[in-house]
Amino acid sequence: MPNSNPAPAAMTLDDVRSVSPAFAKYTEALVVNDLWKRPALSARERSIVTVAALIMRNQTIGLLPYVNKALDAGVTPGEISELITHVAFYAGWPHAFAAVAIVKDIFAQRGIGADQLPPASPELLPVAQAVPDETVLAAVVEGLRPNFPGLMDYTEEVLIREVWRRPGLVPRDRALATISALVAGGLTGPLAFYLNRAVLMGITQAQVSEVVTHLAFYAGWPMVFSAIPAIQGVFSAPAP
Amino acid sequence: MPNSNPAPAAMTLDDVRSVSPAFAKYTEALVVNDLWKRPALSARERSIVTVAALIMRNQTIGLLPYVNKALDAGVTPGEISELITHVAFYAGWPHAFAAVAIVKDIFAQRGIGADQLPPASPELLPVAQAVPDETVLAAVVEGLRPNFPGLMDYTEEVLIREVWRRPGLVPRDRALATISALVAGGLTGPLAFYLNRAVLMGITQAQVSEVVTHLAFYAGWPMVFSAIPAIQGVFSAPAP
Amino acid sequence: MPNSNPAPAAMTLDDVRSVSPAFAKYTEALVVNDLWKRPALSARERSIVTVAALIMRNQTIGLLPYVNKALDAGVTPGEISELITHVAFYAGWPHAFAAVAIVKDIFAQRGIGADQLPPASPELLPVAQAVPDETVLAAVVEGLRPNFPGLMDYTEEVLIREVWRRPGLVPRDRALATISALVAGGLTGPLAFYLNRAVLMGITQAQVSEVVTHLAFYAGWPMVFSAIPAIQGVFSAPAP
Repeated sequence: MPNSNPAPAAMTLDDVRSVSPAFAKYTEALVVNDLWKRPALSARERSIVTVAALIMRNQTIGLLPYVNKALDAGVTPGEISELITHVAFYAGWPHAFAAVAIVKDIFAQRGIGADQLPPASPELLPVAQAVPDETVLAAVVEGLRPNFPGLMDYTEEVLIREVWRRPGLVPRDRALATISALVAGGLTGPLAFYLNRAVLMGITQAQVSEVVTHLAFYAGWPMVFSAIPAIQGVFSAPAP
Repeated sequence: MPNSNPAPAAMTLDDVRSVSPAFAKYTEALVVNDLWKRPALSARERSIVTVAALIMRNQTIGLLPYVNKALDAGVTPGEISELITHVAFYAGWPHAFAAVAIVKDIFAQRGIGADQLPPASPELLPVAQAVPDETVLAAVVEGLRPNFPGLMDYTEEVLIREVWRRPGLVPRDRALATISALVAGGLTGPLAFYLNRAVLMGITQAQVSEVVTHLAFYAGWPMVFSAIPAIQGVFSAPAP
Repeated sequence: MPNSNPAPAAMTLDDVRSVSPAFAKYTEALVVNDLWKRPALSARERSIVTVAALIMRNQTIGLLPYVNKALDAGVTPGEISELITHVAFYAGWPHAFAAVAIVKDIFAQRGIGADQLPPASPELLPVAQAVPDETVLAAVVEGLRPNFPGLMDYTEEVLIREVWRRPGLVPRDRALATISALVAGGLTGPLAFYLNRAVLMGITQAQVSEVVTHLAFYAGWPMVFSAIPAIQGVFSAPAP
C-alpha cells in the first residue's frame, strides 16, 4: 500500500499566475506586500495567528511555508511544538496529526532535535497567570458535569489545570492562537469567553480587530464576518 | 499529470514525540490508554463514532489507522462499506470518495472482495424498525416540497425510504454514526431529531454523553461544546 | 523533504464498487444519470456550483474531475481562472491555493496558456451592473469601520470596488458561485444578502432551489437543510 505524507508544495507566485494573473496580483499586492506589513501585529504574531488558523481548517498546503515563515519570524521551535499541542484541543487530534506530519520534516531539515523542545511535563505556570478566569470555568464545568461527566473530567484535569499553564508558550500567545482558531473555524460560541481572556492578557481591541483582518484572507470574508457580532459584544461591554 | 492517492501515513507516537513530547504524552495517556478503554462505549462503537467523524471532517490522515482499527475491533467489512455509503449522504459525496480512496487499498491488502460486501439492492428492513419517526419526516418533507421539490424528492425516495432500511448496518449503528457525524461537523440543526431517533433505537443518555466525550478529542473541544445545548434539550425533554 | 502535489486521483465507479456496491449504485443512478441531467440548471451552471463548493470545502479529490468536466461543459479557462480568484475571497486563500495546485496541471495538460487567461487588471464593469446593492454594502462598511478599520478598507477597496466588477466572469455566474460556496460552507449569515443579489441578476427561485438540491450531494443533506431558513426568508419576502 502506498504510504507517505509528502508535504504539499507551497504554490509560488508563478504557479498562481499560470492559473490566474489576478489572483497572483492580489496575493502579492494585498497579502505579501501589505497585510503582513501592517503595524498592528508583528510578523511573529501573524505567524501564530496563521498557523493556528491553518491547523484549525486542516489547510495542509499552507503549513510548509507558514511554519518555516514562523520560525524565521522568531517563533521558536519549542513554541511551534506547544502551538500544535495547544491547537489539538481546539481543532481535534487528527488536524494536529496532519500538522505533525509536515512539521516533523521541517524540524528534521533544520536539525531541530529533542533538546529544543519543551519537556512533556514541565513545571506549570501559576493558575492566576494562565487561567485568570478559572472560577468562571469551574462553574460551567460543575453545571455540565451531571450530563457530561467524562467530558468535564477531561476539561478540568487537562484543559483547565494543565494545557494553558504549560510555560513553553506564554498565555498571551495561547490566547492569540485560540481566538484565531475559533474565528477561522467558525466556532463563535466560546469566542466571547476567550476574547475576554485575551483582553485580560493584554491583547488590545486594535489587535483583535487586526486578527480578524488577517484571517479574512486565510479563512475567507464570510467566516470572519460571522465572528463580528461576538466580538462587538465584547468590545461594547463595560469594563469589569 | 501525477495522479495517485497514497493513503496518508498514520503518525506514530515517535513521530509525534519528535515534534512535541507533550502531544505524544497526551495522546498516549489520554487517548490510547484512557479514552478508548472507558466502558461506556465498546471499541467497536468508538470505531464507528471515529470513522464517521473522520469522514465528516475529511480527516484523511486518520482513516488508514482507524478503519484498520475498526476492522480489528469487530466492525465487519460489510459494515464499513455501509458506513461510508451512509455518511456520504450526511457529509457529501466528495468526503466519502476520499474515504473510498483509502479503504479500497485496505480492503485489497486484507483480501476483502465483493463476496464480503452488501449487495447494491438488498431486501430492506421494515420502515417501523429503521425509520420509526417516518410521519415526522413526511410532514417536514411536505412542508418544504413547494419550494424545494427536487431536494424533497431525493430525501423521500432515498434517505427516508431506502438508506436507513438497508440491513448491512443496523439502525442503531446508523444512529450512532449519524449523531457522531453531526456533532463532529458542527451541524447542530438536525441533531435533536437524530438524537430522538437514537434514543428510540436504544442508545442511552450515558452513551450519547460518551460520544461527545470521545469526539472532543477528534473534533476539538469547541465543536462538541457547540452541540451541548441541543443535547441538553433532548435530555431534559419529558418522555413522550 | 518530499515535496509534491499530485492531484488526487478521481475514484472510478469500479473503485467505488470495490468498497461499496450500494454507493456505486447511488452515484450512478442518482448523481451521474439523474442529478446532472435535471433541466433546472445546465451542466455549465452545475459545474460552477460544484467547483465553487469543492473549493469552499477543500475537497481536492473532486477538483481534477470536476474542473475537467467544467471545461468540457463550456466553462472557459478564463472563467475557471476568475472563479478561483473569486472564491478565494469567500473560502480563504489556502483553499484557493490548493485549487491552483491542481488546476495548473490541468491547464498545462490542455495547453492552456497566459493568452487564454484574463489580465490582472482589466477594465471593470460598471458598478450598477456588478454591485447593484452597493449602497447597502457601503452602509454596513461604515457601521463597522470604527471597530474594524483594516477589514473594512480591504472590503471596500477590493471586494466591493473590484472583484465583482472584473469582466472575466459575468456577475450572474459570480452570484451563482457565491451562494453555492456559502451554502456548501455552512456560512448562512450573509446568504440572504447574496441571494437578493442573485435575484437581481436574474437567478430564479427555481434555480436557487436546484442549487440546493445539487449541493445536497456535494456538501451533505444537513448542510443544505441548514441553509433553508435563510432561503425561505428571501423567497417569502415581498418584492421590493
